[in-house]
Amino acid sequence: MAQQKKLVEEITPMEEDFARWYTDVVKKAELMDYSSVKGCMIIEPYGYAIWENMQEILDERFKELGHVNVCMPLLIPESLLNKEKEHVEGFAPEVAWVTQGGNDKLEERLCIRPTSETLFCEHYKKIIHSWRDLPKLYNQWCNVVRWEKTTRPFLRTSEFLWQEGHTMHATAEEAKAETLRMLDVYTEFFEKVLAIPVLRGRKTESEKFAGAEATYTVEAMMHNGVALQGGTSHYFGDGFAKNFGITFTDKNNQLQTPFQTSWGVSTRMIGGIIMTHGDDSGLVLPPAVAPIQVVIVPVAQHKPGVLDKANELFEQLKAAGLRVKLDDSEQSPGWKFAQYEMMGVPLRLEIGPKDIAKEQCVLVRRPDRNKSFVPLDGLADAVKAELQKVHDILYDNAAKNLQARTSIARTHEEFLDIAANRPGFIKAMWCGDPACEEKLKQETGGVKSRCIPFEEENLADTCVCCGKPAKHMVYWGRQY
Amino acid sequence: MAQQKKLVEEITPMEEDFARWYTDVVKKAELMDYSSVKGCMIIEPYGYAIWENMQEILDERFKELGHVNVCMPLLIPESLLNKEKEHVEGFAPEVAWVTQGGNDKLEERLCIRPTSETLFCEHYKKIIHSWRDLPKLYNQWCNVVRWEKTTRPFLRTSEFLWQEGHTMHATAEEAKAETLRMLDVYTEFFEKVLAIPVLRGRKTESEKFAGAEATYTVEAMMHNGVALQGGTSHYFGDGFAKNFGITFTDKNNQLQTPFQTSWGVSTRMIGGIIMTHGDDSGLVLPPAVAPIQVVIVPVAQHKPGVLDKANELFEQLKAAGLRVKLDDSEQSPGWKFAQYEMMGVPLRLEIGPKDIAKEQCVLVRRPDRNKSFVPLDGLADAVKAELQKVHDILYDNAAKNLQARTSIARTHEEFLDIAANRPGFIKAMWCGDPACEEKLKQETGGVKSRCIPFEEENLADTCVCCGKPAKHMVYWGRQY
Repeated sequence: MAQQKKLVEEITPMEEDFARWYTDVVKKAELMDYSSVKGCMIIEPYGYAIWENMQEILDERFKELGHVNVCMPLLIPESLLNKEKEHVEGFAPEVAWVTQGGNDKLEERLCIRPTSETLFCEHYKKIIHSWRDLPKLYNQWCNVVRWEKTTRPFLRTSEFLWQEGHTMHATAEEAKAETLRMLDVYTEFFEKVLAIPVLRGRKTESEKFAGAEATYTVEAMMHNGVALQGGTSHYFGDGFAKNFGITFTDKNNQLQTPFQTSWGVSTRMIGGIIMTHGDDSGLVLPPAVAPIQVVIVPVAQHKPGVLDKANELFEQLKAAGLRVKLDDSEQSPGWKFAQYEMMGVPLRLEIGPKDIAKEQCVLVRRPDRNKSFVPLDGLADAVKAELQKVHDILYDNAAKNLQARTSIARTHEEFLDIAANRPGFIKAMWCGDPACEEKLKQETGGVKSRCIPFEEENLADTCVCCGKPAKHMVYWGRQY
Repeated sequence: MAQQKKLVEEITPMEEDFARWYTDVVKKAELMDYSSVKGCMIIEPYGYAIWENMQEILDERFKELGHVNVCMPLLIPESLLNKEKEHVEGFAPEVAWVTQGGNDKLEERLCIRPTSETLFCEHYKKIIHSWRDLPKLYNQWCNVVRWEKTTRPFLRTSEFLWQEGHTMHATAEEAKAETLRMLDVYTEFFEKVLAIPVLRGRKTESEKFAGAEATYTVEAMMHNGVALQGGTSHYFGDGFAKNFGITFTDKNNQLQTPFQTSWGVSTRMIGGIIMTHGDDSGLVLPPAVAPIQVVIVPVAQHKPGVLDKANELFEQLKAAGLRVKLDDSEQSPGWKFAQYEMMGVPLRLEIGPKDIAKEQCVLVRRPDRNKSFVPLDGLADAVKAELQKVHDILYDNAAKNLQARTSIARTHEEFLDIAANRPGFIKAMWCGDPACEEKLKQETGGVKSRCIPFEEENLADTCVCCGKPAKHMVYWGRQY
């Protein structure tokens, strides 16, 4: 019990210091470690396994929709990055530059990709000639580097892992549909897989991706009222394509310019999981991506038959396709309970001599610690049902937090008051002028527009900032 | 037929110019494209799908053996790379240096990882404390950069994809066993998955990995008599661990230094497949990693029932777990035959009105173009058997090439004669002096020691170069 107490004590309570709570959780659960390169992290096995599960599910979905994976180079020549003006202005201040290869100074410096639109465009120019070559639905899983000043594990790191989809289409309509289709894929992934409800909408001009015509986003709400941009999907029109000279011959033998999209999600989703579902005992993982979905803890494991039965249940659950772990180490059950709670394992299965005599076991759900006695007959189905229940509880709690942390501001005064006192999303009307966004950000010390939702409400007729006629309802908030 | 002829004509015959044949195949089969960064390639969807299949099979095997995946940073500070003297001397001349982040010059330059021993050691120092922490069996799938002067698609590129396993063990014996165990995994992968027979052995001192105590290798023989180092497994002893100050407390409470291994295979295996199995019609892929294992080509597809039956067979084979494609495009069957031959699809299934009437189809094997009529009843099993047969044919042909391209040299004169006239492996005795290796390399314009095989033969008593007493039998050869 001494050890058990120690474990829990080491996590700073959320209410005391949210940032320290977060760092304690990522470190204690062994999700990551710091490296000697500023802002670059090591993703440890337990954290990486979450990413592998995310990858597997998303990759399957992308492929079902006709996407194929490729591998583009890590490095981009400066002249190539410079081809799209807005794009280079957005990214040049935050790229890492390679200037030397072996012992030789390079004639042209190369940046480590911060994103790969330019590389894809250069390749697409070579391989797109006819309408028969369209659409191109490419994706890549890779690392990118953005030289960030302030970093935070998973949420903002100088190097991170992501997938970037880059597609080309014969018509603007088709490209727009692809942009929204992928936003739907991300929405479904956040809600059905990660158990994180999201707001969906379009970024304002000042918040959109460098070089895009429109950026769509899914936005999640963390425990502490700070928003997380979960994934983005961009519609480029034919801007990049024109700059890169990409053309194709249409069915009428006319030369046309194709229309482009890109979309991505990254390892920051792991940060989103931690801050959406975690609690003062540590991590809480959604079952669909948890590296261990069920941990079996034998009770009185020295007694005859206990470990045999535990092993039997392990094999049974594994055969049913579950990610299961049996911990038969010498640590006490109490220590193990705390350990796997801290690691966020969705379900704990306890089995001891009394349970065996009754042909049952105990299932304990991580989020609400609900304890139930379950017959060993038909166990796998019962476990699956409990895992679904865990997912539902996580989603419901997160949805409640999202709702509780969403306020409406109709006046400038209300806006400033909420920004100062009620962390979360603020719904408020906006005139469309970037100057108002900038003013609100300055006045509040960082509250920015998050998105213009697909379903806008008419909360008022005037902009919450300048009082001029309102054009849009906007979700505002502080962001990670 | 015009189009069909065109396809085949575009591939330079192997005998005419092997290097051009190779480049034609990688380009025509759309495995890769060149990028605007010197020596860095784009892996196109068809090539990347081969890599994905390789990854899936190897990753599963690694995990069965207890390895877990992690993600280490892309960048290594110069001071960290410098920690192991031999290692830095080996790699520093071929790394890319990042000297600027955003608008700021870096205080310390960072190299893009050419390999990650130093990063793993730095992390292991932090997380290894007790015998309970051992062994550590980590692996990562990632990109690495080595600033190569001369590059060739897949075989030698400035950036490539690979896996690098890095393990730490309590004893030298355990680490040595791991080194050989992973060499066995690679051997099995080459022979049973890629259908490429390999020689297995130890590298000489001058050919081993920078900083390793011993390097083991699997070596394959290409069509043209040039060897390919397929994968390597290194035993480091406690050299790195001592330099990095990694220690652990053993069961007797004594401070000890752990023992280390690393092992890797890369996208160059795709080059190995091409040059082992390919022919003048193009690529030939081993079924286990072929993105398309069976292509269904309908004959007279406008006739009633043909496409329906083709679709039915497609669904049937897909349901049986096969990677199958139905090409119902408007191209002629002849064009399709040539196209999928060029792409190296192991098996072609033809189905036309006559076949349907007889309740059969035609299966054509890629390597030997063997044609058989197969009943539709029980088709999936027949297809699987034919795929196994394709694998066996590929392996047998490669084994015959390996044998035919292996010569024995007992005298210096014989060695030089074979090196000049019979491309392939040369088995010859060696005194153990690196000066003899250097001399033979100079005299032959590039024939180097490939490995000291596990089973040495006593071909002669004296070194093939200097005539002093022989210590080892060595396989020699030119390499990619």
